[in-house]
Amino acid sequence: MRRALALAQRGVGHTQPNPAVGSVVVREGRVVGEGYHHRAGEPHAEVLALRGAGDAARGATLYVTLEPCNHYGRTPPCTEAILAAGVRRVVAATGDPNPKVAGSGFERLRAAGVEVEVGLLGRESEALNPWYPTFVRQGRPWVHLKLATTLDGRLATRTGDARWITSEAARREVHHLRHRSGAVVVGAGTVRADNPTLTVRAIRPPGGAHQPLRVVVSRHLELPQEARIFSPELAGRTVAVTGPAAPIDAEMRLRERGVEVWRLPLGSDGILAGGLDLAELLRRLAGAGVASLLVEGGGTLAASWLEGGRVDRVSWYVAPTFTGDARAVPALAGRGVERLADAWRLRPVRVRRVGPDVVFEGVPVRRSATDGAPAGS
Amino acid sequence: MRRALALAQRGVGHTQPNPAVGSVVVREGRVVGEGYHHRAGEPHAEVLALRGAGDAARGATLYVTLEPCNHYGRTPPCTEAILAAGVRRVVAATGDPNPKVAGSGFERLRAAGVEVEVGLLGRESEALNPWYPTFVRQGRPWVHLKLATTLDGRLATRTGDARWITSEAARREVHHLRHRSGAVVVGAGTVRADNPTLTVRAIRPPGGAHQPLRVVVSRHLELPQEARIFSPELAGRTVAVTGPAAPIDAEMRLRERGVEVWRLPLGSDGILAGGLDLAELLRRLAGAGVASLLVEGGGTLAASWLEGGRVDRVSWYVAPTFTGDARAVPALAGRGVERLADAWRLRPVRVRRVGPDVVFEGVPVRRSATDGAPAGS
Repeated sequence: MRRALALAQRGVGHTQPNPAVGSVVVREGRVVGEGYHHRAGEPHAEVLALRGAGDAARGATLYVTLEPCNHYGRTPPCTEAILAAGVRRVVAATGDPNPKVAGSGFERLRAAGVEVEVGLLGRESEALNPWYPTFVRQGRPWVHLKLATTLDGRLATRTGDARWITSEAARREVHHLRHRSGAVVVGAGTVRADNPTLTVRAIRPPGGAHQPLRVVVSRHLELPQEARIFSPELAGRTVAVTGPAAPIDAEMRLRERGVEVWRLPLGSDGILAGGLDLAELLRRLAGAGVASLLVEGGGTLAASWLEGGRVDRVSWYVAPTFTGDARAVPALAGRGVERLADAWRLRPVRVRRVGPDVVFEGVPVRRSATDGAPAGS
Repeated sequence: MRRALALAQRGVGHTQPNPAVGSVVVREGRVVGEGYHHRAGEPHAEVLALRGAGDAARGATLYVTLEPCNHYGRTPPCTEAILAAGVRRVVAATGDPNPKVAGSGFERLRAAGVEVEVGLLGRESEALNPWYPTFVRQGRPWVHLKLATTLDGRLATRTGDARWITSEAARREVHHLRHRSGAVVVGAGTVRADNPTLTVRAIRPPGGAHQPLRVVVSRHLELPQEARIFSPELAGRTVAVTGPAAPIDAEMRLRERGVEVWRLPLGSDGILAGGLDLAELLRRLAGAGVASLLVEGGGTLAASWLEGGRVDRVSWYVAPTFTGDARAVPALAGRGVERLADAWRLRPVRVRRVGPDVVFEGVPVRRSATDGAPAGS
């Protein structure tokens, strides 16, 4: 299974909206076939592993990091391929949370007389595709919020100097997060202040860097035409997300540069800065095949995403440095809370050193939502 | 020596302006005497250990966590007691950085034929009295700045709700820091907002809790008379530090409650909020026997102390929580920096988990002061 996990790792960043999966066929203690899912539309890991094994698959054990599918998608069901190959035993790391599968793959195999075991290195397999359960169950992208601040909670000095708060090691991790994400989102203020490209550059993942869809949210499309994010030379696509009030000529200028423009309606619950409908943005992203999203800031966008209740994980990098300045750019600038009991808390929280910096990772939970007395009590 | 360190630990918090010191006399592999310095004016550790040993000290080895003194202070020199007792060998963890000693204790012993070894568990001994070298070399209290914030760098919500950001475990550590400090300093805003007592309550250290001198800095003495810090029932003393502009009747009212009032001149370099002379405050505290100082906030006082360049150590507790609010109370509210290169950095930085929280500890260094090109290059 460790080998299957290592194979699956090669697909990470390239498979969305499918999960990264690896598979190994073992016969009489020897690996006779292996494979991993390269990208959506291409064969599943099990099929590749069985292909490699050929006749040797008969009576063999197939290890796979996820329950084999039992439905017709872009490819035929893997269960049929496993049965056709004459595999005797299947060991899977986890079941598939996709309601279209959800145990039916295992059922089909067992019904046909194949021995099935589930759970070996399950946690490791889940960590390959943290976005997958949210995406297949809720039909929306999994949202990962990344922040990088000083100890005094600042994204930049009051003049906007932000290069670099965190260390090279931390910034390299962020490139890994981008590579694994279907899209990266920033606000207009970040484009104006930092002029980022949002590309994956600092790392060399297997299979090459995956350039996520670049999304910039700007209510009035007040964006510099010369921003690097709009450069036609960048690999991958850029989308500008705006609302009903943006001037049509600004939209036209962006479209001429090859930038897609999405106009969102105004929303009421779960709104982006300026009132745009967050749920609608998530629907459009899902429709574009984006299964996971990295929100990179700035503070206004990040806070509105949190307030919209649509953040599934936070990775907060803290550098052991401070500006000493209440006017420096704040990490989060939202409606905020009056009582500490209403503040967000990371739960569970995992803390790691990354070079000289520390990263806090967890699910953002409103304290009052979990600790408070139930309504009416 | 481990035993001597454990004995010294019992004196921590009680000995200032003297360091905590422990000593053990060993003869033929058996402990024949031990002692530690209880408080200033009382006998030194070596003298107590020798007293315990009596005649058994003759030809024995004396272990001590700090170089024995060789000068007349409040007690006669320990070197003479060691020689009179007939000790054959002295093992010291560290030399004494006090310019009045600084190796002369070892010299005196060696000149009299005693074998001397230095350095065993030296780092552990230094950690008992981190304030000691600064105090005896520079004649000013060692300054320890403590902050406790959310991940977004806030001391409280915008309404001032600050109870409790950090965990009970972190707050207990702060009581240990108070116990070890000669004085605890806060600004007037903290007294108005949080109404703290600044006493040591949550812990039971050996020898009982040491209640540090409580210092509140207020330029105009705009302090509520009913503040808990001024309660005559509190153990220990409270000092209100102010400047030339404070009304005399406010001073009188505080004096009537038993509160000392120190009027500082205005300063130019190293100033407290409102322009008070920081160096003069340190001189007065040193004169009052305060060898180490815990600055507890709020954000204005902490920043002015940093800007005055008089912070020797920072302990920054970060809780995995955030307010999301740019109007929440900032950790540091000073003049700040325009360029990130001028920001403070903790160096070296030590990171520890304390319950669910993380503490960053180090010496605050201005980046430009260490990394920048030298002036004129």
